[in-house]
Amino acid sequence: MAASPEFGKVVVFGVGLIGGSFALALKAAGQVGEVVGFGRSVGTLTQALQLGIIDRVGANPGAEVADADIVLIASPVGRMPEIMARIAPYIGEQTLVTDGGSTKEDVVAAAREHFGARVAQFVPAHPIAGAENSGAAAARADLYREKKVVLTPLPENVVLNVARVRSAWEWCGAQVHELSPSEHDGVFAAVSHLPHLLSFALVHDLAVRDNSDVLFRFAASGFRDFTRIAASHPEMWRDICLANRVALLAELDRYCIELDVLRGALLSGDGATLEKVFDVARAARRSWPAGQVK
Amino acid sequence: MAASPEFGKVVVFGVGLIGGSFALALKAAGQVGEVVGFGRSVGTLTQALQLGIIDRVGANPGAEVADADIVLIASPVGRMPEIMARIAPYIGEQTLVTDGGSTKEDVVAAAREHFGARVAQFVPAHPIAGAENSGAAAARADLYREKKVVLTPLPENVVLNVARVRSAWEWCGAQVHELSPSEHDGVFAAVSHLPHLLSFALVHDLAVRDNSDVLFRFAASGFRDFTRIAASHPEMWRDICLANRVALLAELDRYCIELDVLRGALLSGDGATLEKVFDVARAARRSWPAGQVK
Repeated sequence: MAASPEFGKVVVFGVGLIGGSFALALKAAGQVGEVVGFGRSVGTLTQALQLGIIDRVGANPGAEVADADIVLIASPVGRMPEIMARIAPYIGEQTLVTDGGSTKEDVVAAAREHFGARVAQFVPAHPIAGAENSGAAAARADLYREKKVVLTPLPENVVLNVARVRSAWEWCGAQVHELSPSEHDGVFAAVSHLPHLLSFALVHDLAVRDNSDVLFRFAASGFRDFTRIAASHPEMWRDICLANRVALLAELDRYCIELDVLRGALLSGDGATLEKVFDVARAARRSWPAGQVK
Repeated sequence: MAASPEFGKVVVFGVGLIGGSFALALKAAGQVGEVVGFGRSVGTLTQALQLGIIDRVGANPGAEVADADIVLIASPVGRMPEIMARIAPYIGEQTLVTDGGSTKEDVVAAAREHFGARVAQFVPAHPIAGAENSGAAAARADLYREKKVVLTPLPENVVLNVARVRSAWEWCGAQVHELSPSEHDGVFAAVSHLPHLLSFALVHDLAVRDNSDVLFRFAASGFRDFTRIAASHPEMWRDICLANRVALLAELDRYCIELDVLRGALLSGDGATLEKVFDVARAARRSWPAGQVK
């Protein structure tokens, strides 16, 4: 006889790439009894049902979360507060809540506001498995395999609850790390949010020109890779940038100082400075294990 | 009996990725009798010989170019003037010269200075087949297959000479386009040189911090792609940036204005502006044929 799944009932708000892949991964691991999905788009929910991502479309959030083992809030971060407000009064005593948001301080603040004392049942998470595709059709059972998930546990979380949420993400195949919410937001402003902003900015800059057709005709593989993330979801990235704007502004200002140094070197024909910056960058990029050329 | 090759003797200055791949491609197409290589590094020349990229290491540039059909100057652009000066007095009447430089106005200016009236025999070229790897070991016979090569012919070039240089690149499998040198430099400042500068700048910015280990630990696939070009060759990119600094500075200034708009939107919490910029960028990126996600 098969062992019973670790999680009897999972409720997912947002059945796109992040939420859908979480559901598919727990199903593939045999660790979930039933998945109930909520979302803004009937089309996406229907698709998620057809793809076997969810077993049922939920009708009443309060009723569904009351007996859930895990609730994953996987909407854009800007919509999380209203979802939290809606489910807060109904969360069961055994129910744990986690999320898939790319920012953490704002999500934690919203959770404190809406969950009140029940914030102890909320263990924030950020799965590092972005892709420029979104939607239920992009969900995959192996999206999180060997990817990092950062938990940012709260002082109110008991160890057992953190362990249980960790376990859910580990069943998805992820390597789970822990940071404080503010450490998390600082790190990701630098390594994720700023690069997205920079990439969007470059493509926008070229796209609005009269000769954009010529520019895109001669753009090659370097441009292709640099701008892959500019195909990311605009609403999601608007929310992330706004949610983490303090850290992102600090990173942007720091980056503009870096550009100013390069600008000065170009102006004065200072090849030594250019080469030194490029050299340090290349050495760091080449020694980064995750960046190895495939 | 096999047809005789189109080019009896090819001389390559710089037997790394660009020059080595040109030689290998012409050999694979059966269109070259003999390839003679020059370079700064004995190690690279020896390797090129062992890999069958060149048939001989040249000793005397003047003697070798006198009876060459095609000379390819595939050194970093900053070293091209001295190579041109060295070979100029010896170029044979039938010899055509082309190059592999990523900038064209500076290369053309150097060619006019050093070749004098023989500049008619120089047909400038830019093969768009960059890779972050360099050196003879990275050379491949198929590097240029279905890649673009931009010729920037000079008013002095007769049609037949342009056609013959075009033919050499087409034997390498490339799609040959033509632009004026200044059009070329404007386009590539925007779609190649600026993205390289931006990518180097980001990696340098992170690499010099005390917590760079944490930053790189959590950097993921978006960062990996955005920074792939930051692993490019520092000397080569120093030369490109200096050679094309007027156009590159114009692009950098334009980009900083774009960043300033985004900075203002972040500061004021103006999500509509962020989303509009991201949306235009995403639509342009998604409709770019060469950028399709593989």
